[in-house]
Amino acid sequence: MDPYVIQMHGHGNLPSVLDVHVNTAGRIPVPGKMKGRKARWSVRPSDMSNKTCNPIRAIVDSMKVKPNPNKTTISLSIGDPTVFGNLPTDQEVTQAMKDALDSGKYNGYAPSIGYLSSREEVASYYHCPEAPLEAKDVILTSGCSQAIELCLAVLANPGQNILVPRPGFPLYRTLAESMGIEVKLYNLLPEKSWEIDLKHLESLIDEKTACLVVNNPSNPCGSVFSRNHLQKILAVATRQCVPILADEIYGDMVFSDSKFEPLATLSSNVPILSCGGLAKRWLVPGWRLGWILIHDRRDIFGNEIRDGLVKLSQRILGPCTLVQGALKSILRRTPQEFYHNTLSFLKVGIEMEQFPEFENDVEFTERLVAEQSVHCLPGMCFEYRNFFRVVITVPKVMMLEACSRIQEFCEQHYQCAEGTQEECDK
Amino acid sequence: MDPYVIQMHGHGNLPSVLDVHVNTAGRIPVPGKMKGRKARWSVRPSDMSNKTCNPIRAIVDSMKVKPNPNKTTISLSIGDPTVFGNLPTDQEVTQAMKDALDSGKYNGYAPSIGYLSSREEVASYYHCPEAPLEAKDVILTSGCSQAIELCLAVLANPGQNILVPRPGFPLYRTLAESMGIEVKLYNLLPEKSWEIDLKHLESLIDEKTACLVVNNPSNPCGSVFSRNHLQKILAVATRQCVPILADEIYGDMVFSDSKFEPLATLSSNVPILSCGGLAKRWLVPGWRLGWILIHDRRDIFGNEIRDGLVKLSQRILGPCTLVQGALKSILRRTPQEFYHNTLSFLKVGIEMEQFPEFENDVEFTERLVAEQSVHCLPGMCFEYRNFFRVVITVPKVMMLEACSRIQEFCEQHYQCAEGTQEECDK
Repeated sequence: MDPYVIQMHGHGNLPSVLDVHVNTAGRIPVPGKMKGRKARWSVRPSDMSNKTCNPIRAIVDSMKVKPNPNKTTISLSIGDPTVFGNLPTDQEVTQAMKDALDSGKYNGYAPSIGYLSSREEVASYYHCPEAPLEAKDVILTSGCSQAIELCLAVLANPGQNILVPRPGFPLYRTLAESMGIEVKLYNLLPEKSWEIDLKHLESLIDEKTACLVVNNPSNPCGSVFSRNHLQKILAVATRQCVPILADEIYGDMVFSDSKFEPLATLSSNVPILSCGGLAKRWLVPGWRLGWILIHDRRDIFGNEIRDGLVKLSQRILGPCTLVQGALKSILRRTPQEFYHNTLSFLKVGIEMEQFPEFENDVEFTERLVAEQSVHCLPGMCFEYRNFFRVVITVPKVMMLEACSRIQEFCEQHYQCAEGTQEECDK
Repeated sequence: MDPYVIQMHGHGNLPSVLDVHVNTAGRIPVPGKMKGRKARWSVRPSDMSNKTCNPIRAIVDSMKVKPNPNKTTISLSIGDPTVFGNLPTDQEVTQAMKDALDSGKYNGYAPSIGYLSSREEVASYYHCPEAPLEAKDVILTSGCSQAIELCLAVLANPGQNILVPRPGFPLYRTLAESMGIEVKLYNLLPEKSWEIDLKHLESLIDEKTACLVVNNPSNPCGSVFSRNHLQKILAVATRQCVPILADEIYGDMVFSDSKFEPLATLSSNVPILSCGGLAKRWLVPGWRLGWILIHDRRDIFGNEIRDGLVKLSQRILGPCTLVQGALKSILRRTPQEFYHNTLSFLKVGIEMEQFPEFENDVEFTERLVAEQSVHCLPGMCFEYRNFFRVVITVPKVMMLEACSRIQEFCEQHYQCAEGTQEECDK
C-alpha cells in the first residue's frame, strides 16, 4: 500500500475531522526514512526558552496572595503611567496618529530599521554638537526592549559576559541569559545616591566582557548620575576598552534639581549604543516604538556592528509603521508643558531587623497585599534584597491612601530593637 | 593618584566634550582588574548577527543596476499592497484605530502575549468545531515574523533542524540560521501545482528534526493545497512524530476556484502552531500584528511549550497596543466585500536555454531593470533558480504596462532553439 494514501475508517460521509491512520504493518513503508527518529511524540521546549526568565513575572506570579477583601486594591508595583487615566499622553500625540492613519501612507512595510524620514526625525531631535547624529546612526525598534535585545545580540556571543547594575532593571538579565550571555552584577551604592561602585565594576571586567550596561536615570532607583560620575564611568570603559550600552529611556524625565546628561555627549572616545523610545516621556509604552542611537566617532564599531544591527533588525521587521509615521509630529509638536508633567520613581528600604515576623522583602510585600491590598514590587525583582519599589504614577489621592495604609501596616508590625524605647519612626 | 579622578587637559572652562585621559603610569591602578583584558579596542559583531542573512535583502541589495532612465520604474518585486494606494485597507479598520486612540485605554503596557480581550477576539474569529480555540491558545506577536520566530525558538535547539519548502519564503531560513538551527529544504513540485514532494520530505526527517514548516497558501508560489494533499502531509507528521509550524498568513486569500483549509481542522492528532496576522488580509503589513494559534488537542505540546512561548514573548513585550485595541472591530466589522478584493501571487518561469545571453535568473531580472525599469524578484531569493516572481498588487494599468514591457524584453532577447523556426511564444 502506498503510504501516502490515507486509510479511512468507515465508509460514510467524509468526517469533519480526519484522523489519519497509516498502514505500516508488515514492512517499512518507504526505505531510508526511519533513520533513528523515534516514532513517538516528544516535544520539549528549547534550551533558549528554558533559560528565558523575567524575574518580575517569576516572582510576582508566584506570590499567590489574595488582597484584603475589605480594602480596595492599590497597585504601586508596575510603572504603567496610563492605567489610572491621570497621566494621559498629549493630544498632539493622539492627533499625530490620526493624521498618520488618514494619510494612508503608513500601512505598508517600512525598511526593517524604520523609515528614513522617521530616523531623520529622531536623529535631529537628539543631535547635539557634542554628540552629532544623522539618520544612519538611528535604528527604530519594537520598543526599547527590542533596542536592548539587538544591542546585546550584536555585541555578545554566548559565553561572553555583560556588566549590569544591581539593583537594576531585570530585562538585561532576561535577554542576556536567553542568549547564553553571562550576567555580572556590579553594585550601586545607596549611601552615595546609587552611584556605581566603580572599583567593583572594574574588578568584574575580564577578556570576555562584551559590554557595560549603564542605566541612567536609573530604574528602579530614580537616581541621576552627575557629569563627574559619568566621566568616571567613561574612564573605566576607556581604560578597559569596553563599549557601553546606555539605557537612557528615562533621559530628560528628571526632577528640576537634577540634570540628565546623555553619556555620549561626554566622550568622543567610547563607542556607545544609546537606547530610548517613546514609552516613558510620551507616556505610550504600549505603542512599542524604541530606538538605538549609534555613537561611534572613533569608528570602533565601524560598519560591521552597524551592518550587524541592520541584519538582526530584519528578523522581525521593526516597529508599527503608523507610530513611525506620527513620529515627526510627536517629536516636534508635543508642547513643553507636557514634558514638565514629570515622573520618577521612589525606592523604599525596609529595616528587616525591625520586622522579625517577615523573612524577607518578598514576605513583607506579600503581607502588605494580604492585609492592606497595596501592591509593591519586592526588591528581589531588581536583585536587591530588603527594599521594595513603589511607583508614583498613580493619582495623588490614591498615593496618599497607599501611604497611610503602608504606615498602618508598619505600625502594626514594627518592633523596636530590644532594650530601646524609641518610637516607630515613619 | 586615584584612577577614578579625571585628569584634565589645560585649566580653562570645562570643555563641552571631555575626553578622558587616565594616569596609569608607574603602577597598575587598582589591583586585580587587568586580568587578561587587552587594553585596545576590538568590537566585533556576534556570530548570531554574522549568521543572520535575509536573502531577499542580500540578493536585491547586491543588484546594483540602474533602471532605464527613459522608462518610469515599475516594481513587481516586493508584495506590499499599500504602496500604490490602489489597495487601501477598509475604512472600518481605520475607524477602529481612531476609536482605540480616542478611548485612551490602549496606550499602556499589555501582557507580553497581548490583552486577554484581544486574544479572545482572535480565538473566536478562528474557532471552529474541528479546531476549537480559546484565548489561552492565542499569542499575539509583533507581526507574523515574530510569530514564526517564537515558534522556531521554542521548538528547536541549535544543532537541530527544521524542514522548509523550496521554493519558499526566505524568512524561515533567516530566523533558523540566526539561531544555529539547520535548515533542510524539501521540494515543491511545479508540475503538480507546487504540491510537496512527500517522499523527499519524509526522507529528510531524522532524529534532530524539530519541526516541519508548511506554508499554505504558498508564498511565492500562490498555490493552495487540496484537502487530500494536506491529509498526506499530516500523515507524514503523524508517522514521524514531528510537530508542524503552519504559516497560514495567506489563509482565505485565495481565488474563488480554490478553497483554503486550515491544517488544524484536518487532524486532532498532530500538534500544530499556526501563524497568521493582519498584514495580508487586512492590507496593513506595517502595523506588525501577528499571532500564533496553538492547536494541541492531544496535549503533546502540553504546558511546557505554552509556557515557553509566554516566556519568550516577555523578551520584547508584544505588538502595538493600539492595534490590539482595534482588533475587535477590525475582525468583526470589516465588511465581506472588502475580503473579496482578493490577492495572490504569480510565479513566472524562465526557459533559460532560450535566453543564452543571461547566465541565470538574477542576471535576467537585472537586465529587465536596466532596460525596462521593471523590478521583479529572482527565484534565487526563494531557493528556486530560473524563475522570477512578480506580485500583482499593483494597479491594473501599471500591471498591463509591466506585462507589455516584459513582453518587449523577451522578444528582444529570446532565441529559438537551433534548427527550429518556432515563434517566440509569449
